[in-house]
Formats: sequence, C-alpha cells, structure tokens
Amino acid sequence: MIIMKSDATKEQIAQVVKQIKQCGLRADVSKGKFRTVIGLVGDETKIPFAHFATLPGVKEARMVEVPYKLVSREYSKFFKGENERMVVKVRNIEIGGDEPIFIAGPCAVESKKQLLRIAEGAKKAGAHILRGGIFKARSSVHSFQGLGSGSSKEAEQALDWLREAGERFELATVTEVRGETQVDIAAEYADILQIGARNMYNQDLLTKVAKKNKPVLFKRHFGAGIEEFLSFAEYIAAERNKNIILCERGMLPVGKGKSFTRYTLDLAAIPAIQKETYLPVIADPSHGSGRRDLIFNMSCASIAAGASGLMIEVHYNPEEALVDAQQAVTPDELKEIIDACQKIHKLVAPKRNEGN
Amino acid sequence: MIIMKSDATKEQIAQVVKQIKQCGLRADVSKGKFRTVIGLVGDETKIPFAHFATLPGVKEARMVEVPYKLVSREYSKFFKGENERMVVKVRNIEIGGDEPIFIAGPCAVESKKQLLRIAEGAKKAGAHILRGGIFKARSSVHSFQGLGSGSSKEAEQALDWLREAGERFELATVTEVRGETQVDIAAEYADILQIGARNMYNQDLLTKVAKKNKPVLFKRHFGAGIEEFLSFAEYIAAERNKNIILCERGMLPVGKGKSFTRYTLDLAAIPAIQKETYLPVIADPSHGSGRRDLIFNMSCASIAAGASGLMIEVHYNPEEALVDAQQAVTPDELKEIIDACQKIHKLVAPKRNEGN
Amino acid sequence: MIIMKSDATKEQIAQVVKQIKQCGLRADVSKGKFRTVIGLVGDETKIPFAHFATLPGVKEARMVEVPYKLVSREYSKFFKGENERMVVKVRNIEIGGDEPIFIAGPCAVESKKQLLRIAEGAKKAGAHILRGGIFKARSSVHSFQGLGSGSSKEAEQALDWLREAGERFELATVTEVRGETQVDIAAEYADILQIGARNMYNQDLLTKVAKKNKPVLFKRHFGAGIEEFLSFAEYIAAERNKNIILCERGMLPVGKGKSFTRYTLDLAAIPAIQKETYLPVIADPSHGSGRRDLIFNMSCASIAAGASGLMIEVHYNPEEALVDAQQAVTPDELKEIIDACQKIHKLVAPKRNEGN
Amino acid sequence: MIIMKSDATKEQIAQVVKQIKQCGLRADVSKGKFRTVIGLVGDETKIPFAHFATLPGVKEARMVEVPYKLVSREYSKFFKGENERMVVKVRNIEIGGDEPIFIAGPCAVESKKQLLRIAEGAKKAGAHILRGGIFKARSSVHSFQGLGSGSSKEAEQALDWLREAGERFELATVTEVRGETQVDIAAEYADILQIGARNMYNQDLLTKVAKKNKPVLFKRHFGAGIEEFLSFAEYIAAERNKNIILCERGMLPVGKGKSFTRYTLDLAAIPAIQKETYLPVIADPSHGSGRRDLIFNMSCASIAAGASGLMIEVHYNPEEALVDAQQAVTPDELKEIIDACQKIHKLVAPKRNEGN
Repeated sequence: MIIMKSDATKEQIAQVVKQIKQCGLRADVSKGKFRTVIGLVGDETKIPFAHFATLPGVKEARMVEVPYKLVSREYSKFFKGENERMVVKVRNIEIGGDEPIFIAGPCAVESKKQLLRIAEGAKKAGAHILRGGIFKARSSVHSFQGLGSGSSKEAEQALDWLREAGERFELATVTEVRGETQVDIAAEYADILQIGARNMYNQDLLTKVAKKNKPVLFKRHFGAGIEEFLSFAEYIAAERNKNIILCERGMLPVGKGKSFTRYTLDLAAIPAIQKETYLPVIADPSHGSGRRDLIFNMSCASIAAGASGLMIEVHYNPEEALVDAQQAVTPDELKEIIDACQKIHKLVAPKRNEGN
Repeated sequence: MIIMKSDATKEQIAQVVKQIKQCGLRADVSKGKFRTVIGLVGDETKIPFAHFATLPGVKEARMVEVPYKLVSREYSKFFKGENERMVVKVRNIEIGGDEPIFIAGPCAVESKKQLLRIAEGAKKAGAHILRGGIFKARSSVHSFQGLGSGSSKEAEQALDWLREAGERFELATVTEVRGETQVDIAAEYADILQIGARNMYNQDLLTKVAKKNKPVLFKRHFGAGIEEFLSFAEYIAAERNKNIILCERGMLPVGKGKSFTRYTLDLAAIPAIQKETYLPVIADPSHGSGRRDLIFNMSCASIAAGASGLMIEVHYNPEEALVDAQQAVTPDELKEIIDACQKIHKLVAPKRNEGN
Repeated sequence: MIIMKSDATKEQIAQVVKQIKQCGLRADVSKGKFRTVIGLVGDETKIPFAHFATLPGVKEARMVEVPYKLVSREYSKFFKGENERMVVKVRNIEIGGDEPIFIAGPCAVESKKQLLRIAEGAKKAGAHILRGGIFKARSSVHSFQGLGSGSSKEAEQALDWLREAGERFELATVTEVRGETQVDIAAEYADILQIGARNMYNQDLLTKVAKKNKPVLFKRHFGAGIEEFLSFAEYIAAERNKNIILCERGMLPVGKGKSFTRYTLDLAAIPAIQKETYLPVIADPSHGSGRRDLIFNMSCASIAAGASGLMIEVHYNPEEALVDAQQAVTPDELKEIIDACQKIHKLVAPKRNEGN
Repeated sequence: MIIMKSDATKEQIAQVVKQIKQCGLRADVSKGKFRTVIGLVGDETKIPFAHFATLPGVKEARMVEVPYKLVSREYSKFFKGENERMVVKVRNIEIGGDEPIFIAGPCAVESKKQLLRIAEGAKKAGAHILRGGIFKARSSVHSFQGLGSGSSKEAEQALDWLREAGERFELATVTEVRGETQVDIAAEYADILQIGARNMYNQDLLTKVAKKNKPVLFKRHFGAGIEEFLSFAEYIAAERNKNIILCERGMLPVGKGKSFTRYTLDLAAIPAIQKETYLPVIADPSHGSGRRDLIFNMSCASIAAGASGLMIEVHYNPEEALVDAQQAVTPDELKEIIDACQKIHKLVAPKRNEGN
C-alpha cells in the first residue's frame, strides 16, 4: 500500500494511481479523516516500493503482510485509526455501530400475505432489517428452489413484495442472490444483497454483486478458515465496495456419530475476525444451529461474543414454513431474543470500545 | 431400565436387582423424590423386559433408546423430574445450581509461592474453585510435564500445596489425573478429579477415577461428537458415580489455512448437551480459544449459551507461565469476566428454568 | 420413478410423462436395453404412485429412497442392469470403460508455446485428455486469474490454443468454467466442461453447464459428504445430461498442526461412490496432495482404490508454472505413473467386474 | 543432537552423555553404521550447543528443528543414512523390509476354538502376524469389552490362547493394551504390543508400554495431525524403544450428512510420514473404512500408497463376530487381498527404493 502524507494533493494522489496502473495493478484509493491510503489490487511484487516511496506526497510505500489486504486492519488503521470499525449504513440503520442490528424474516418468501404478516411481527419484535429468500440455495434439485427460480416475472413479483413489506413496516431489506443472472434484478429491489455460504467461493458472483455498490451481506462457508473467508471478501473490496457485512453461520461439525446441531457456530471467530478486519461481523444462529430450541441461547452467545447483529429466521407458524421449518422462531420468541441481546450488548460493549 | 412403583418396597427393589445380575448385567439403582428407577449396565438385549414388567413393585420395564443411558434425561426424568438438573456439590459449592461457578488457577503449578499468589488473586476476583495442573498432558515429551511427573514425593508436595492454597483461600480444588497410577494420590488431596480432553477415551482411567466417588470434571475430546462424549461419561456413571461435571473445551478447527484460534469452542453443544443429560455443563474458554485477548468475549458467550460455570487459566504474569502462557488472564481480568458473566447468567437463567 | 413394462409403447410412455407434468414435476425418460424407466424431477410426494401404477404400460411406480435419485443405482438398475456402469464417451475415449483414462496438462494455460509443449509431452506419456485452466478459481483476487479473466478476446484465444493442442496431439480437451458467463464460449471450444470443487454448490452454474449437453467433469467440494456430492450431481442429471464424470480431489484436512498435504484425498470414497451411482469416478492426486513428491504413490493408490482415471497437472518445468508449481509432474514422471497405473488397474479390474 | 565423529571413543560418548544429564536432560544414544549420534530428551534450549561442539569426539552439536526429534529423518540420517528406513524385526518377520507384512485375525478373541480356526485361515491366506483383541476399547460401557476385561485369570487365559495359536501356525502375535494395568501381562504373552487410536494421547500408557522393549504397533488417532502423531511416537522413542510400527487407521470424516465410511483413510499420510520418519508405516483398512465391501480396494490402495503392511480383521463367518462384524473379511477374501497386494508392492517398490 501507498500511505500518502496528510497534506498530499489530488494531483499527487492521481500520479501514484497512474503509476500503479502502469505496473499492471489496480489502485484502491481510501480517503480517511487524516490521510489517504492507496491499496493495491494485483500482484504486489510487481510494484517497486522503493521508487514509490520517493514520489511527491508519499509518506510510506510497502507491502501488506496478510493475504487479505484491502479489508485488513493493517490497511485501515492508516485512514480509519487503530481501533476504528467500519459502519455499514443502509437507510437509517448502522451495522457495526453502537446498537446491535437484527435481521429477521422468513427463510423463503412464500406469498405476499406470509411475508407481510412476518414483516409486521418482526418489526414489532424490534427487528431492523427484513430478510426473505427468493432465490434459494438448496441441497436438492427436488426441493422448493424459491419463488424466484421460476420465470423472471415471478421473481420480480416476489422481490416487489419484499420491497413493499420493507417500506410498509420501515424495515430495510436483504435477499440472497444465488446466481449471476439474478444480480441486476435483486439490486433493483433490495437494500442489501446477500451472498450465501455456499457461494462464498463463487468469485464471479462476488465481483458482479460488488459492482452494484450496495451493501453486501457475505456469509462464511462452512469449510472456510478465517483467512480464506477474508480473502474472498477481498474480491468484493477489490471492486471498491467496502460495504461488507461479514456473517458467521456455522462450520462443518467435527466428531463421529449423530450431529446434534446442523453446524458448529464458531463464535470465537467473531472477535478473532474483528481483530483482523474493520468490517462488521454478525451471526446467524438459525442456520448455525438448525434448531429452534437453541436459538435463544445461541443468539445471546453471539452477541456476547461481540457480534454487531444477528440474522434470525422468523415465521408466525414455524412448522408450516416450506423451507427450514425446524429452525425458525415466532415473532414473540424474537422479541424475547432481541430484549436479552440488547442488554448483553450493553454489558460487553464497553470492553469492545477499549479496542477489543 | 426398570421403573418401580412409587410404593415399591426395598425387598421388591432387591429382587429386581438380583434378577438383573442373573442376566449378567449390573444394576444402577437411582432413588428419586417420587420413585426408584433401576438402570442397566451391560447388554440390554439380554433382559426379558416383558418378564421384568410383571415383577412385584415394577411399574414399567423397557430399553433406554439413546446409547448413553445412565446419564440421559430419558432415565433421570423418572427419578428427578422432567426438567430437573443434577447439582454437583463440593464443599459449599453447587455446580449446576442457581449461580455460575468459576474455576480458576494456573495451567501448571510451578511453585508454592506462585500457586498461593494466584489462588489469592482468583479468590478476590470471585472464583469458587482453584485449578492447578500437577500431572500435565503435553504434546511433546520434551516439554515440562508438570511437577507431578518427577518422583511421587514431588507429586505429593505439589498436591499438598494445592490443598493448602484451597484451604487458605476457601476455594475447593481440582486437578487433572493423567494416568491410572496418579488416581489414588490425587484423590487424597483434591476435591474434584479432572479427566482431560485427551483422556476422554481412556476407559480404564475413567473407571478408576469414578470409583473414588469424588466429583469428576470430564472434558470433551476435540474430535468427539456429543453422543460419544456422553457415551464415555457413561463409563463414570456405570461405577455409580453421577457427580460428573461435563466441560466443553473446543473442537478441532475445520478450514484450511492458519487457525486464528487453537480450537473451535462449540458453544451450541452446551444447550444441546443439557437437553440430553441432567449433568451440569461448563466451558473452558482458555483452552477453547487459546488466546488471552478472546477470553472475555468467549467467557460471556459461554455463559450466554447456558454454561453452569467456567474454567479459566489465571496467572499474575501470564507471559512468564511455564505452560500455555498465551492463554491465561490476570486476576484483574478475571474479576471483569466474572462480573460480566454473573449479569449475563441472570439474563439467561429465567429462560433456562422454563426447561430450556 | 415409474418403471415401464418391457413392451410399453411410445404412447404409453408419453401418457405417463404428460401426467407427471400435470403434477408439477419434470420427467426424466431413461431408455435402457430392456425397458424404459421414468425418473422424476421435483417433489415426489406430489405424485399419486398408486394411480400411476395402474396406467397402461406401467410395471411399477414408487419413490426412490436416496436423495440423489437420477444418478443412483436404485434408478439405473432398471434400465442399465444391476452392476452396469455408465461409460462417458468423448471422441474415441471411454471414461468408465475397460481402460483407465489419464487427463493431463498444465494447471493454467500460460502461452500457446507452453501449452503445445506440455500437450506433446502428455501425449507421449500416454495421456488421453488435455487439461488447461483458462478461467482460474483462485483464493486471492491478487493472484493470476487465468488468461480468460481478461477480455473475452483473450479468453477465446486461449480456448483456441487448447482446441488446437488437442487436435494436433489427438487429445480430447477439458477446461474449467468458473462463472456462468463463461459457459457458452467454453462449450464451443472444449470437449469436456469442468466444474471445480469450489463451484460444486453453484447450482445456477451446474444447470447452465448441464444444458450444453457436453460431458461434465464434476469435482467434489473439500467439505462435501458423498450424499451432498451426489445430490449436486443431480442438478446436472436433472437437465437430462448424465454424461457426468465425478472427481475426488481431496477433503479438508482434520487434525491440529501443520498440514503435510494440502488436502486429504478420500480414496475410500471412490469405491463407496461407485456402489451408490453408475457414474464413473476419477481422482485428482495433484490437488489432492498438493505435493509433487507424493503424486506417484497417490496415483497408484487412486487406481488401486478403483478410480476410472486420473487428472494430473503436468509441466515440462514445474518450478516455473505460474499456478500450483509445487504439485505438477514432468512428462517423464507422468509416463512412469501411467505405466504403473495401467498395471495396477489390470490387477484390480477383475474384482471390479464382479460387481464390486 | 550431538553428532559424534566416526572415530569417537566410548569414553568420549560417555562424557557427552554425562554432560547432557548435568543439563537436566536425558540422552538417546544411537549407534549407526558410520557413527554415533546422541539425541536429547527434554528441553533442548537448556543445552549449550556451542560448548558441546568443542567436546572431544564431537563433530557437530545442534538442535533438531522438527518437534518429533528422535523419530525424525533429520536425526536418523546421521546414523542410518539418508533414505534408509528402520526395519522392525519380530521372530523371523521384518516390518519395513522388502516384503509387505500382513497382520490378520479377529477383532476380538471370543474363544479358543474361534481363534485357532481364524489363525489357521489367516496363515493359509499368507498372513505373517496374528492379531486378537483381548482388552477392547469400546465406545459404550454396555458393549462387550473383551475377554480380558473380566478377571485377570480370564485375561491370562485368552492371552495364552493367542500365544498358542501363534505358535501352532507360526505367526507372530499382537494384541492391544488398553490400560496401564494390562501392560505387564500382555507383554508376557504377545510379541507386539498395540496402542489403539483412542490411546494415542495416553502418554502414561505409551511410556509404560515402551519400557517393555517389545515392538509397539502405534495407531494414529482419528483427529491427530501427522506432527502430533509423530510427537506422541516420540514418547515411546524417548524410552529408548525405536521398534515402533506406525499405523494409519482413518481420520474423522468431514462433510455433512450420512457417512458412507466409518473413517476417512488418509493414505497420503503414508508416504508423507515416511518422508518425515524412518519408522515403518502400515495401514488398517478394516477400521479405516468400516466396510467389508471396500477392504479389497482399500488394501490395494494402501500398499500402492507405500504402506509396509496391512492389519486386517478376519473371521470365518464375519456376520457372527461379536465386535465389528461388518468390517471383517473371510480367509478366502484375505488370500485374494494378499495376492493382489504383493503384486502391487512389487510395482511401487522400485520407486520407493529411489528414496521415495
């Protein structure tokens, strides 16, 4: 990265960017409160750092040590400050700010009526963002693939219900894009675009979604180490989109015999990731445990671990949900969760502000 | 299991036990508030349940479905009640009771002075039980194996320091027994005997420890599923020792690349285990994360997940600890952790008492 | 599935297909030597099997028990016979036939010269199919993404080199498609389309590739169980494309500490998968081990385990390969591998033909 | 380690050993064809290597880089030569020599008659060593724990049958010791003492077994990385017992859903371990796959991977075995396996002798 002096001029910055391009790399210009830092997209070994250090307006020029460069604290500390975090803003909501944010809604949108009723319940319970799956990632081609997997007209109709439900109940909206052809239309309707765990490695999708310049909810794959997770978040950041909300949703269970939970929620990853990156991290206790009866505890635990928010599946009648019926909670249960989590967040937040 | 009528006589119970033995099995007589239930140790298929159901005083006779029988709720509900948990009592401390219990102390006992100083700090911070490793399980034969791995005189001396520190600061004590030859002597000095994660599968050690009739702190192996963990706890219960404190201490990390934590603390296992068994479950965030800077968050998260207590490594100067220096906290940090955890425990406890 | 009588007429088959569509499912008509079987794509519970069993020409109508239906032996045994396997044909090559098939070539195509030189070496060593990565799936956005990740003109040029190299040395060709936008063009040039391990879960890509009606080389994700692997192969089969070559390429390593291999090649999966499905299975010892010095042994082991072929990275000078330099072998080493593997294949084949 | 000059005298060696002890470490004197090398047991940082390098007869004094020191090639190359392997000799059998060695027998000894009949079949099939479990490591306290788990008289009787069967059919014998109290008696009867996978971490057992100075068959734990496996083998070597036969027997399966094999046999570990250590490595395809129908292929694959031998469960009527009935083969099947494996061993051996 190239760290500019605090009084570097626009021309000096432009000159650095130009020379970076001449080396065959792309420049990531990050303007901070105090100075501008220029990150590099591409093979850093092609950059003559000694030469760059001598350019006018340049304070320092050097490699970033970690493989995830543009999302690392090593990079952000020069333009954001040492312990500062990114706050992702969507409508009037701040993810990664002072309050925990709750994303709630059905696993799959099934009908307008179902969605509106759940949205109303979620809002009353205290949620901030409405989730609703329209393009569903499923293990079996024989299962319901979401309303968006039929004609594009059906997809658009379901997306419109999501938008309408969001507006009516003053909730921001998020929906998953599963394939590249769904990106454009989803971006027209939803406030946040989600990339599911199974698509974490889908770099073409990541790049296409990033370019929409909307906040991206990016889920960790169940077999991905932290380094790999952040290295793929880097594909989004490389398109100059840093509005990335990272989400821990459970790892492959290890250990023989019957699994008592669908996945193993890796809660220590939450504070560990927050020490590596300035991006906010949330948790998904619904997918993480796959068990409705564990969601209260795992929600509280996620917030206690330092999560900036939660994503929870809600249904007024969980048993009749078409997808993942066994892991949704009712709006009443959601309220109980949000209340407890807000109190726990207050207890752990002071520690967090010490730079934890 | 054989469920006796609430008015079954001693003689009737004795008759059932006698016939169980004649079938080649052992009987586990559990007297509850309302009735006596008799568990079976051995191959249940050898028991003619239809015949047993007709014996005087017998209400019901049937197999237990889960492989961990004597520690299952399916068994305990008949003598303890549906949502009742086991409370393990040691001195005046109740593990699994209304208050969270904190076990603290050095990873390894290094000297009398070190131990006393840490014990004093732990007590002031609010801990209830003093831990101190004397027989250390180590990955390398070239590493310090604990003071107990020299002569038996040295082992006894270190155990005596532990006893003395416990008495002086009114802390119960726990120490790990690593091999069968250490069981007798450790049982003379410590209040609780610990079986480490690496010995979870060591059934000869489990049986020998169980027979001491002292509370056993039983750690889950980092590669053991819940079913397997409980099936090995069953080796202890089969010796009529149900004073078992289960401890989650982290699973093998899954995911390629550098691990950011030593293990993956499986916090969802805590409520999941509590639905299967009546035994109390605690967590060890020190070994679970292996990182001092994550212990505050992971302690809070463990309690939020429903743990009945925590085991935390403490050192007045973590950097100079001979073993696991990077994962101990100071007494001041311990106090901060205990304070936050007690508040969180209050927030999640009401939910817990609903039978969650 | 609906099993037709051996003398069922076209009209009777058409009638069954029509009624399946009326139930909202798709029909997969499989004509075998002896009879036609009609598989179902969608929710089988919507099919009134009792009614279908009474339709003219129908012998039997029932659910398929396993979640992967169209690729299961339970399905194929009715039209292929009990122990019969699928043979995927491409040019004059039979994958899954009597001889093991060797796919060889560079990890990434770097230049026409590099590709032709490697193709020539691979052919001389005895390879049948030329591999060459043009759209590379990479962990880091900062790494070389393959010649196809620049302009579409560059992609087409590299694909044309692949085609030319294949023709010149009489090798069939295979290349990976990483994103949906690359499917059309890749299908124009390559004989086989590869879906990489990281895209195993990318159902939109699977569907799009399947529709090209070309053989698909489908790699198992490093965190996918066998059931999940076959359930995603089902996405391809559901588009009426059964020309699927399954490929085992290594699982996430389990076990703390430094990994001595990049992945854990799951060789027992090869015979295990072959008992579940009629599709051929090959192995990739290059990615599976990530170590050039282990490839000879792991190639022999894969064939001994029952693999129908191997995919091996070859470079005339492995050290200078732009991607995965540490896991390629030279053409001479390839020849040694192919020779040993052909002998081992002969030793294990008779056992295989017994229906193993 | 301290590498002595080729003409170092006994007195010079004794002097080095003496000074090592004065530093608080133990010395491991390894006499080779060309020179003597002295390994260190304990904390190497306490050794002033610069001083040791100046002692008479000393050629070189330095740390061993890998954590497993006494079993490493880095150590052995000075007394054994670069690519030389250890050959473990028992009776007239050489494990790690020119021929693959086959260990066969029942999972559990059930009766004298059963054992003799299986031993006879194993011998006829070509096996060299008879296995027979007397102290069984079991997941459930309710399962059959082996004949040795009753009275010590019963244990001794079963051990005597094993000895007798071995003598009658000219087979060496191996049996597992599960707990410390079984070591003495097992060592009286069996030629080789086995430490099971679940006891890999049981350092007290390892030390006790090592001291018997009999060959040790040491199985890798299903959650242990290679580094950890070798670090625990080091506990045996530290007692001056290098007659260690390492055994790969399968890792924890990774991947959601039904496991199609009990464990994942990590065959790449075989050549990878052989590059780290001079100890011979064998494989156990019975436990590794847990499926009788996969044992032929996995046996061939293990030998192709470079294994020096196999351990296979045999029963004349697998269905009626009391333990692990689903994973035993018949003597006829064993013969077929041994025949194929011997041919494959010949094919891969030349490569191996090149230092592979």
